[in-house]
Formats: sequence, structure tokens, C-alpha cells
Amino acid sequence: MCNDKRPLIAIPMGDPAGIGPEIVLKALANPEIAAFARCVVIGDKDVLQQAAAFPGMPEVTIHVIGGKDADNVQDGCFKPGIINLIDLNNITIEDLKLGQVQAMCGRAAYEYIEKSIQLAMAGAVDAVATTPINKESLKAAEIPFIGHTEIFGGLTETADPLTMFEVHGMRVFFLTRHVSLRKACDLVTKERIIDYVIRCKEALNKLGVEDGVMAIAGLNPHSGEHGLFGNEEMEAVFPAVEELKKMGYLVEGPIGADSVFHLALKGRYNCVLSLYHDQGHIATKTLDFERTIAVTAGMPILRTSVDHGTAMDIAGKGIASAVSMEEAIRVAVKYCS
Amino acid sequence: MCNDKRPLIAIPMGDPAGIGPEIVLKALANPEIAAFARCVVIGDKDVLQQAAAFPGMPEVTIHVIGGKDADNVQDGCFKPGIINLIDLNNITIEDLKLGQVQAMCGRAAYEYIEKSIQLAMAGAVDAVATTPINKESLKAAEIPFIGHTEIFGGLTETADPLTMFEVHGMRVFFLTRHVSLRKACDLVTKERIIDYVIRCKEALNKLGVEDGVMAIAGLNPHSGEHGLFGNEEMEAVFPAVEELKKMGYLVEGPIGADSVFHLALKGRYNCVLSLYHDQGHIATKTLDFERTIAVTAGMPILRTSVDHGTAMDIAGKGIASAVSMEEAIRVAVKYCS
Repeated sequence: MCNDKRPLIAIPMGDPAGIGPEIVLKALANPEIAAFARCVVIGDKDVLQQAAAFPGMPEVTIHVIGGKDADNVQDGCFKPGIINLIDLNNITIEDLKLGQVQAMCGRAAYEYIEKSIQLAMAGAVDAVATTPINKESLKAAEIPFIGHTEIFGGLTETADPLTMFEVHGMRVFFLTRHVSLRKACDLVTKERIIDYVIRCKEALNKLGVEDGVMAIAGLNPHSGEHGLFGNEEMEAVFPAVEELKKMGYLVEGPIGADSVFHLALKGRYNCVLSLYHDQGHIATKTLDFERTIAVTAGMPILRTSVDHGTAMDIAGKGIASAVSMEEAIRVAVKYCS
Repeated sequence: MCNDKRPLIAIPMGDPAGIGPEIVLKALANPEIAAFARCVVIGDKDVLQQAAAFPGMPEVTIHVIGGKDADNVQDGCFKPGIINLIDLNNITIEDLKLGQVQAMCGRAAYEYIEKSIQLAMAGAVDAVATTPINKESLKAAEIPFIGHTEIFGGLTETADPLTMFEVHGMRVFFLTRHVSLRKACDLVTKERIIDYVIRCKEALNKLGVEDGVMAIAGLNPHSGEHGLFGNEEMEAVFPAVEELKKMGYLVEGPIGADSVFHLALKGRYNCVLSLYHDQGHIATKTLDFERTIAVTAGMPILRTSVDHGTAMDIAGKGIASAVSMEEAIRVAVKYCS
């Protein structure tokens, strides 16, 4: 298989009590995905076998490559419907309660991610495409990280990983995320914008995106109409853009938030820096909820992720959509190629 | 023609120096539009004849119904490509400078709207679908209104018309519009939300929308996660929803802004109350910029509008897209039927 050019993607199975196992099996049974990616699941064989028997699930064969010390991922059999598994064997299937927060599941989900990161750091895989985990389960297991980004940051020793969203080819970065909207307004400063644009540009370069102009969204309606409603554009965004241009960066802004995403979708910008969480989230998720993929950039390894949760309420029913999982694999392949 | 069930729609031609005349001619030459609407243009014959000669414009015949006192709009000949015109004859064509702010154009554009409103108030037409005007031209003409909504409010004696956006069947109202984002945060109060939901519900009823649940978007990321980042949801939105439910209103919220529009598009809500300008604007315009239509509700007459400007830079080139104009007519017909 050494001539196989398809990238190798590690997929941690996610929280065993959620829809992770189902969407992994569905995505990897899809011949379209197998056509461009070689995927290796890091998970638990009993859980996957149980998920394969849920109503409406595709026919799959589970092929165990090895256990927790395995690194021979290229030894898999990469055909549609064959699930190449590194079996961490860390779930007692009789104790698994689908749809419920359990410490066992939080610990297991963490171990799948940890192993995936080890494989990526060692160069055994080209990228990691993650499935949903549950923050409460992580907490119940006393894992010292609150979520995916923190785990990746911690285990790859990246101080502050950058989250980028991608949907229909449009890329969105976030100047701020989980802070109140008022606090987000406070954080729109010239210094932070300059620092952030530089970091975004570095992250884009690592992803192989060299060309194009970055757009910075406005904060206030119509970018404040020159201070008529709101001063952040006059005091922070315009001066930051001016200084960045002097430094040689291709950047435009502020561009009114009601048109910047439309323009980016039309190809005018290679990415948009949104100034607050919902600005970029509304744009991407209203456009296409399932195909909005999170890319964690600025790390030594590449990670993409579905941006939905464990959907505990429908776990075990076989009805979860794998569209997002498939898209996460597609975006991983795009950027590691 | 008295058996003709197609609604009668008045279309003020817009600023003569902008793309209004072009998009009107293009839309009314489209047989699909003529199939469901009888349209009457209120404008200037010389301007329309000039626009008809721009490169790439469709073949049209201009049929003058009457002048500024005309109210016999049903006497038009309602076939594709026939432009039924009430000719206000208020432009000296030799003085018209395409793409430029002119007092003559501001006054003319105002008079087209004024006449359209008169026709609608008299019941001679079923609705008004407006084209772009230029605020600077209005100002140059010393018109005592700053924009469309103010003109409609003033001339129909509606104290505070409600703007609703519609795109792909999704309806969006706005708790605040042209204020800074910080000020918008201040204006998220229990009292204002209750008052606004009641007014939105009345406006929806007037539009014939009786069923369904209204969603109120959250202000902070993930609706603040129970006060973790931002208190507006706990202090204003939740209490308002609780009280509205007691009053018998079908309302849900706060719903995280990154999912509420997606859910509305899937049909879960009959409308979304966005809490600030860009929240609703980003959602609608990223989804489909050209098909985002503004509906001015809560007035004695119905008005829909394109939500783009006069595009002075491309006026006269024959390249302006009529998609938005066509959609404005479509939405007008939907709600006046």
C-alpha cells in the first residue's frame, strides 16, 4: 500500500454514549470518502460492533490493526465499509448506558484523542478529524481539560490554538469566542486585531493558503457609519488595518458584517476575521449547519472537527447524520494534501 | 380585466440616477413575474426609455396609463415586457447624470413613492414593492425624511413601522437596528422584548400568518450559558418569555443565535426576533444576499423592498441584477393574496 497517495486520517471515536460511533461507521462505509482518504478509528471494538447493529446502519467489517501501542496504521485495509481500528479496549460494554454522562466514557473519549494526537505528532497519520465528546463526561472522569481545543493545545504544547471555521470554502477566524457580547466589544482593540491578523496569516500559511486578502468584519451596524453608531471601527479597526497594510499584510476592513460573508463566499476574501463568536457562527451555521467544520490551526498537527455535540437524545437510534463527519474528513484531506 | 386575480403591485421607479429603472424593466420583462403579478410603475417615461436602450436590456414597450392624478391602474395591459407607467414626468432627461447625487433625482424618487403610497392607501393597488433610493439625493432635495421607512411611516401615519426580513421563507424581526452594538445590549430589556413580541405578532397576523412559534435569539454566545458569559438572557429574555407565555403567546427563547436561524429555516419557528441589527442581517444576507427582502409591516398598507442600494457605480451599464426586484414582487404578492 506504500504507493497509496490518499492521506491517512485518525478519527477518535468520540464519547461512546453519544452518536460518535454511529457517524464514524456511516462515514467510513461511504465509498466517496474511501476514494480520497484512508481512515483509522481510535476507539473500542465492542462499542463499534454494538453501533453497527443499530437499525438502519450500513454493513461494515471491523479490522483491528492493534492496541494502544499500535502505530502501524498504514497496515490497514482501506476499502469502503472496512473499519480499521486501533482498539483501546477501554469500555466495559455491559456498563455502557447510551445517552448518559458517564466517567468511563469521558475517560475513554479522552484516551482516543490522546492516542490520535500521539499518532499525528509521530507522523503516523496526516491529520485528526474529531467526533463529539461530552464536557460533563470529561469532568466526571476528572480529565484536566474542558474540551477538545484545550486537549489539543495541552498535548501538542500549543499555547493558544486558533479556531477557524470553514463552510463552502469560506474561512472564518474569531477575535473572541466564549465571552459576553459586551466583553467582546471591549476586546476590539487595535493591538489585539494586529496580533490576531498576524497569527491568522501564519496559520493560513501552514494550511497552504498563501494568496488572497483577509477581511475584518465591522462590529457595529454598517461598520458604525463613521462613528455615527459606535466608535470601535474608528478607534480600533481602521487604525489596525492601516498599520497592517504598512507592514505588508493584504487586509481590508472594516467591512460591514451584513455583506462581508457574502463577499467572502463569492471569493473576494481568503478569510474573514469575525470580531465576536456569533458573528462568524451565525454566518457559517445559517449557511450550512452540517457542513460547518472547525479547523484547529496554529498547532504542529492538523485537526478538523464536526461542530455538533454528542446528541445524547438520539444516540443508539441509527438516525444521526454523518454529513458533518464526512465533511470534517474532506476538509482534513484538503489541508493535509 | 376585472376577472384578473393577479394582485396589483405599485413599483416606484427609484432614484433615476441609480439602477432602479434598469431592474424594474428587467423584472417586468420576465414572464415568470407577469404570471402572478400585475405591476404598475410610477416613474418617468424618458428615464425608462433611456434605460431600455442600455446594453443587454430586454425588449419592452412603455404603456402610459396616466399622469400624476391617475388612479386607473387596472386599465394597464398586463403582459410580459409591457411596462405600465404612471408618468410623473418630473425629470429633465438632458440634466440627468447617471451615477450622481442630484436634487432633481431625490425629489423625483420621493414623488414616485408618494404617488405609490397614495394608490395603496386608496386601495387602487394591493401593495408597493420599492426600488433603491439615495439618502444623499433625498437630502439634497430637502425631502423631510431620511429614508424609505420614514417616508412610509410619515405618509401612512404609522408611528413606528416594523421592519421584517424574509429570505427562503424565513422571517426575521429586529429588536434594535441602527444603534451601536453596545447600545443594542443596553436595549435588551424584559419590557422592550414583551412590547416587541406583541407588535410582531400583530404584524404577522396582518400578513395572514396566524400559526407557529416565534423564537427569540440569544444575545451572548450560547445564550450566555446560564450567566457564565453575559446576563441579558437571565435578566431580560427568560423573564420576558415566561411572561409572554403566561399571556398566551407562542414564543420560545433565548435560542442560541448560532442555531436559531438554522432551526427557523427548517420550519421550527414562524419567525425569529433578532436582538440587534447584524444578528438578523448576517443570517439572511449570508444565506442569500439577493433574495433577502425587507417587508415593512404594521402599516395600513403593505410594502416590500429590495435590500440593496442604488449601486451608482454600475448605473447605466445594463448589468444590474433584477433578482432582488423580482423577489420583492414575489413576496408582496405572497402577503397581499
